[in-house]
Amino acid sequence: MNPAEDAQLALLLEVAGTPKPGNVDRERDFPDLRFEHFLGGAVGAGPGLRVAQEGVPVGEAFERAVEGMSQQAGGNTQFGALLLLVPLVRAAAEGDLTPEGATRVVEDTTVEDAANFFRAFDHADVFVDDPPEDAEALDVRRGSDAVPAVEERGVTLYEVLALGDQSDDVAAEWTGGFERTFWAADRLAELAGSAPASAIGARVYLELLAREPDTLVAKQHGAKTAESVHVRAQEALEGGSEVIEAFADSLVEDGVNPGTTADLTAAGLFVALARGEVTV
Amino acid sequence: MNPAEDAQLALLLEVAGTPKPGNVDRERDFPDLRFEHFLGGAVGAGPGLRVAQEGVPVGEAFERAVEGMSQQAGGNTQFGALLLLVPLVRAAAEGDLTPEGATRVVEDTTVEDAANFFRAFDHADVFVDDPPEDAEALDVRRGSDAVPAVEERGVTLYEVLALGDQSDDVAAEWTGGFERTFWAADRLAELAGSAPASAIGARVYLELLAREPDTLVAKQHGAKTAESVHVRAQEALEGGSEVIEAFADSLVEDGVNPGTTADLTAAGLFVALARGEVTV
Repeated sequence: MNPAEDAQLALLLEVAGTPKPGNVDRERDFPDLRFEHFLGGAVGAGPGLRVAQEGVPVGEAFERAVEGMSQQAGGNTQFGALLLLVPLVRAAAEGDLTPEGATRVVEDTTVEDAANFFRAFDHADVFVDDPPEDAEALDVRRGSDAVPAVEERGVTLYEVLALGDQSDDVAAEWTGGFERTFWAADRLAELAGSAPASAIGARVYLELLAREPDTLVAKQHGAKTAESVHVRAQEALEGGSEVIEAFADSLVEDGVNPGTTADLTAAGLFVALARGEVTV
Repeated sequence: MNPAEDAQLALLLEVAGTPKPGNVDRERDFPDLRFEHFLGGAVGAGPGLRVAQEGVPVGEAFERAVEGMSQQAGGNTQFGALLLLVPLVRAAAEGDLTPEGATRVVEDTTVEDAANFFRAFDHADVFVDDPPEDAEALDVRRGSDAVPAVEERGVTLYEVLALGDQSDDVAAEWTGGFERTFWAADRLAELAGSAPASAIGARVYLELLAREPDTLVAKQHGAKTAESVHVRAQEALEGGSEVIEAFADSLVEDGVNPGTTADLTAAGLFVALARGEVTV
């Protein structure tokens, strides 16, 4: 498979992996966000992923991927995952799928990439924090309305994401050498063959959550809840499958969704697939 | 979504629908054929479906779809479904997704299409019957070795499939106006909105099986078993969810796989998606 296909498969394997506490998986739907919305999102993202592979600039490819992803009724299914996958697909297509290669791709982004990133928010309702105090004009929730401010200030997409890298772990991947993505890929490679790919994806999801609190949970429910979910993930890992299932049920009941950790899992699955370390 | 994307989504919704007695679904794996093999097959089939949409001849598009589908370790996941989807995608791209439009596409197939159909068997291990007595040279199990005989006899792909339309219900769709495909699509349209798309897909799968015995079961286990599975599908429909679950478990236990009925379900889902009658 080529990088765009590996990315599409990574999105599907991520959502298929179960149990993935707090996220939609093949055995758990939320009331308005269901497994099949993620299937639709993965299919719809295809053209954006393919143009990323072909060398269309990151911002434009990302906007197309998000636009395609949004052709289903569940809303934002894979926005964060695509923000990781698009530069990773580009790095893979350039033959340098490494922390350095991915960092080069994101550091090379331009003001036009930033403008297209803001336009992507017109297609999907993404949960985000308030912007830093000096950056209200660059509030991503303004979508394409913010493009004049982006162009006036001359900020690149890398610089836009650097504004949020303290509170958003997808942004932190961009500015931190995709540390957790490659950690996840290495763990997947270690676990490969012990269980189907989607199952080891679910395992690594839990390990990621046990390593660090989820930033989407922190934004939606506060740092204390995020910390508690993080600690409970550690306990679940130690407690085994029954504890994991109970943890999964309780998060769905409480509407707590560690979505950023799922994004990182999808990115890790992509790297492991593209490197041939995980296969289906 | 365009027809190629609708087809890819149809493949995913088909396998996601549960319970689908005797077939892999999101809750049931066979030992060597798992849910994620179908995810990989759907991703891999993408390029073939796209060239079908763009007007590449049916046989060549089908061979590419099967080659792509086969990049996973589960073997033949969606061969029959693709043999239905490729001409249906073509008909949709031509703006005539009707029994007449699909029939025109298959009747227009050529000797070259037939040659590429035989080449597709080189990529996947497909369970097929012995050929008719006077057609050993056209045994599809010979794969590309049969191409000289195909060319010498000058048979089109339509004519090749007509040789098998008594014993194979995918072939019967080609020569019978895609009757069961459009019946399934109409039923899906009636049920749309009552449950998620994959769930109504599972329902219509069972209804198809209750209407007619599955020809893959007949080939693998004999007409008597196929008839018994068909009758039990009727009882399951009447008996409700517990009887359906028990039926599903018993078929997996016995290794009885009504795969042709799953192919027809995927084709019906495609038509309903492409007509906008079913959405996700």
